[in-house]
Amino acid sequence: MRSPRLFVEDLREGAATVRLGPREAHHLGTVLRLGPGARVRVFGSAAGEFEAEIRALDRRGVELALLGRIRPPQPARGPDLWFAPIRRQRLEWLIEKATELGVRRLVPVVTRHTVVEPRRPERLRLIAVEAAEQCGRLDVPDLAEPRPLFEALAQRPAERPLLFADERGDASPLLAALGRLGTEAVDLLVGPEGGFSEEERARLREMPEVVPVSLGPTILRAETAALFALSVVRAFAETRP
Amino acid sequence: MRSPRLFVEDLREGAATVRLGPREAHHLGTVLRLGPGARVRVFGSAAGEFEAEIRALDRRGVELALLGRIRPPQPARGPDLWFAPIRRQRLEWLIEKATELGVRRLVPVVTRHTVVEPRRPERLRLIAVEAAEQCGRLDVPDLAEPRPLFEALAQRPAERPLLFADERGDASPLLAALGRLGTEAVDLLVGPEGGFSEEERARLREMPEVVPVSLGPTILRAETAALFALSVVRAFAETRP
Repeated sequence: MRSPRLFVEDLREGAATVRLGPREAHHLGTVLRLGPGARVRVFGSAAGEFEAEIRALDRRGVELALLGRIRPPQPARGPDLWFAPIRRQRLEWLIEKATELGVRRLVPVVTRHTVVEPRRPERLRLIAVEAAEQCGRLDVPDLAEPRPLFEALAQRPAERPLLFADERGDASPLLAALGRLGTEAVDLLVGPEGGFSEEERARLREMPEVVPVSLGPTILRAETAALFALSVVRAFAETRP
Repeated sequence: MRSPRLFVEDLREGAATVRLGPREAHHLGTVLRLGPGARVRVFGSAAGEFEAEIRALDRRGVELALLGRIRPPQPARGPDLWFAPIRRQRLEWLIEKATELGVRRLVPVVTRHTVVEPRRPERLRLIAVEAAEQCGRLDVPDLAEPRPLFEALAQRPAERPLLFADERGDASPLLAALGRLGTEAVDLLVGPEGGFSEEERARLREMPEVVPVSLGPTILRAETAALFALSVVRAFAETRP
């Protein structure tokens, strides 16, 4: 069995010990029934991944000794996912799966046809942390605050292509577009259930960095579209040198 | 707004009217607040898709008049997904998403490291039906009964490649394997959370139709692996003539 992995927000390479809170203590002590002497792994985006050993554990927290680095830090390379907020359960699911598939940043944007529901940022963050711990990545994707689409786009670096999932028939398939661009350094934009408005579509298509793409023959729900697009970018990146 | 779509198991082209049960009556009458005269669409894998009009509707059912065919039937072309059964909520989610992404048939197989939970076939079938109605496909994927892996494999046509998601590092990326095979006419095999046993892996790798493939740098949960693989096959098929 693989050692359990724990994300440590502010992990630094020089540290000798790390102290974690009740969530991690519960997971290690109660769920996995580990105690002092057991080996675990800890990771953080700036420091990489380390072998560690449990020194002390009670309900309030756990103390770990860092034994040595087993993986150096890596720059986050996946796409940013821009998406219209969706209902709670589907959003939680999207966060988990997008994290597994290597999303760099989750950027909810408010469009004409979306209603923003109240968010619970701590819970959403925890879902991303647990997915990162489980899947082996070294960082946790950023969860941005929801903002109006064009306001957010105006502040996005315009050199990086933004692949926009367009429901109309004339866009080329996502994988073909990636091949033409010749890079996996792209971001993704997926619309709300009701689609983008005509005005939004027209404005998007006027932006030079926006590349309309088709996702295939059936209509995907918003969260399925996001996962499809992240999967294809990941698969494309894997075939590149 | 698109007209609502309803799957009709035994739809025949020559029929003048179709009678559906309480589920469809509830959906049309109570959820969508439609009544006699409203237009809907009905579809079935053998007959294609038809424009229809509500003639009568009460709690027990709805009667529709078929007005004319708007799409001919299409052969189901997506991959079969072979997978080890997973826990209920994740299984339901897998069925919904796999249906949207075009899976032809869902084939649960029992491996060394899986426990089969009790299934509720009617509920699982309903999830597939609703996903098919929503996404625009003309058929509903088949849901096979769980069977032991090698017993089921022995009865599978050996000409069709079976892409096997192998956790070991030496398999080539899924998209590269598809490119080498030069066809999207493949099936997919995704293992249980605990992975395949060494003996299972060795037996799989001996089968000439089995092609081990890698799904990328992070470890995907069983249902994420399935959706990733279906997405990549769909994207690959879209770029083919």
